[in-house]
Formats: sequence, C-alpha cells, structure tokens
Amino acid sequence: MELIEKLNWRYATKRMNGTKVPKEKLDRILHATRLAASSFGLQPFSVLVVEDMEVRKKLQPLAFGQPQIVEASHLLVFAAWDNVTEQRIDNYIQDVATTRNAPLEALAGFKGYMSSLLKNTPEHNFNWAARQAYIALGTALAAAATEDVDSTPMEGFSPDGFDEVLGLKAKGLKSVVILALGYRDAEQDQLSKAPKVRRAHDKFFIHI
Amino acid sequence: MELIEKLNWRYATKRMNGTKVPKEKLDRILHATRLAASSFGLQPFSVLVVEDMEVRKKLQPLAFGQPQIVEASHLLVFAAWDNVTEQRIDNYIQDVATTRNAPLEALAGFKGYMSSLLKNTPEHNFNWAARQAYIALGTALAAAATEDVDSTPMEGFSPDGFDEVLGLKAKGLKSVVILALGYRDAEQDQLSKAPKVRRAHDKFFIHI
Repeated sequence: MELIEKLNWRYATKRMNGTKVPKEKLDRILHATRLAASSFGLQPFSVLVVEDMEVRKKLQPLAFGQPQIVEASHLLVFAAWDNVTEQRIDNYIQDVATTRNAPLEALAGFKGYMSSLLKNTPEHNFNWAARQAYIALGTALAAAATEDVDSTPMEGFSPDGFDEVLGLKAKGLKSVVILALGYRDAEQDQLSKAPKVRRAHDKFFIHI
Repeated sequence: MELIEKLNWRYATKRMNGTKVPKEKLDRILHATRLAASSFGLQPFSVLVVEDMEVRKKLQPLAFGQPQIVEASHLLVFAAWDNVTEQRIDNYIQDVATTRNAPLEALAGFKGYMSSLLKNTPEHNFNWAARQAYIALGTALAAAATEDVDSTPMEGFSPDGFDEVLGLKAKGLKSVVILALGYRDAEQDQLSKAPKVRRAHDKFFIHI
C-alpha cells in the first residue's frame, strides 16, 4: 500500500472545482469512516453528508465564506453527542448483542464499565465524544486520499450556526469539525503546489 | 487500495504476542502519523515511541495493568502541547519559511491568524491540541492496518502518571491517548474472532 504517497499528495485544499466524487468512491470513504475506531466501540457521534446546494449556501456564511463549502462535492459534518445517555448506551449494547449473538446478561459488565461515563458532566462527555469524532476524521482523511479525492478539514465555522441550519439540537448532536470532499482547482489554489510542511522526524517523535 | 478490508481486519487488540514490528513497517506507520493533517498545519503535539521494556513496566500499572503495554512491540504515546506559545508558533513559521523558501514577512498574516490562539486559556488550547493529536491517532490506526500491524488505542491510563514517568511536564507536553502496536495473540484474545460492531450506515450517517 502506498498510503504515504497518498498522504503526501493530499493537502488542505482551499479551492475546489465542483466536480462530483463518484458514488462508489464516496461510499468507500464513508464506509472507512464508519469503521474508524472509537473508545468502547461506542461511536458517540454522527456524520452528516451534505450535498444539497441550498443548505450549503446557508452554511457558507457561517464558515467565513470559505469557498470549499459550495465548491466541494460533499461536505461531511462530524457531530458529536451532546451527552452520553443511558438510552444511547442501551442502543449500543443491543447492537453488540445482535451482531455477536450474545445474551444481554453477558454484556452487563461491559455496560457497567461504560456507564461510568454517565457520572461525568455533559460537557465532559461531549468533549470526549468530540475526540472520538476526530479519530474518524483522521480515518476519513486517509480514506479520501487513498481514493484520490481531495479533502479539507475545517474548524473555522460557527458550530451553533451549523447546528441551527442542520437541526442538530433536536438530534442531541453538536457539530465539531467539517470535511469538504471534492477535487482541487489547482489553478485557483496557490497552495496546491506548495511543499508540505511537517516537523522533522527527530522533533516530532521522542524515542524511548 | 483495500483500506476497508484492512480496517475490517483490525480491532482493538487486547492481547499481543510480543513479536516485534519490523523496522521498515514501523517507520512507515510513523511517517504516515507525521503526515497527518492538523489545524494550520501546526502539529501541536509530539508522539513518544516507547520500546524500552523497563519504562513500559513502569507504565503498565498506570494503565490498569493492561497487558498490551508490555506485550506490544512499541507503544505510541500521543502527547499534546500543554499550551500554544509564541515560541512554538515562531518555530512553525520558521519551518514554513524554510520548507517553502518564503520570506518571513510574507507569512506575517498567517502568523497573526494563528496567534489568535494565544488569546485563549492554556486549558482551551490544550483541548484543541488534544483533538489534533486524535486526527493523527486516526491516521496511525489506518496506517498500522495497511501494514498488517495490530493496534490498540487506549484512553484507560493515568495521564499524570504517564507524564511523570516520561518526563513530559518539562517538555510542555501532556499525554492524551496511547496506541499499542504489535501482533495479536489470537488464542489468548477472545475478541480476536468477534464480529466488528458498528452502527448501521443509516443510523450513523445523515444524508442531506
């Protein structure tokens, strides 16, 4: 696998050309995102896949007018659970029982272990859930690169504004980070040719 | 690329067999981790690569005695900056200038934009830095899978304890998440054969 080559090819694309990502590529990127690891396997977040242009036009001013919002093929919005609730844990335990053909009683210990989360504040749990979403973001970025699809992870937007437009509050979700998927407009994007800047190995890693 | 197949193969390995990950594979996993995206490209974290068994034996009781700590080949400790400082931004700007052969004056706007981080509290910046580290964790997980190397992301440890053993405070770092790399002990690990549990596509994604 030439993952390193693909990761070197990708960059935070500032301008995209509106070309659509073929459905089979998008499906594979989403599938990989859904397979991302999360603590307990709980996946305490959802991912919105926004293609509708009217919605994206409403989102754009809430993201400092950044052009990728409308020039992308699809916009992924990673939205973390506003809190961990008993219902959400129960749903997951039910999924585990069904998938693994295990009796619920056998999962009581695992469930009790997870339920320790319920003792935390909603804010603590939300921040924890947001970190889990970032693992999936990292996986999605790698998956997009392997499909030769450009991507731009973006934190520069109003989470409250996005939540309002996307109706997330009613779903118990809060947007934390977005990822534009599409194809670079190399002529318009002066960063498309810029060498990637990364800290040198010996300044980034500490070997013990 | 068969990334999905690799991601389906991986799971949070509970028992490892001590086999060493070959150097060229480890190097590629680390390289991919270093190429992970981060906001502004700032990479506000470091990654410790812990191989020394004496150190790992000291860490194990600080991670609830989990066996992967010593059964792994290497233990990656993702450690976020305790704060964003002017010095750290300056170092990065210098890296950008060198890599892109750009005069520092041309980077003043970019630097000013990043400096808005300095107005936040250390706690806010640390939490932001931790999220960036989680993007790299997601990338590392994908990279390990593509190398057929097992991995276990772990949050169940004492960050303060790890920071103490690893001398992180003096480096302005705080451990946030760890990743054991190695090879599964399929006989000892009853989860090695368990079907992967992930929320169904239509419950995980919201298409708009």
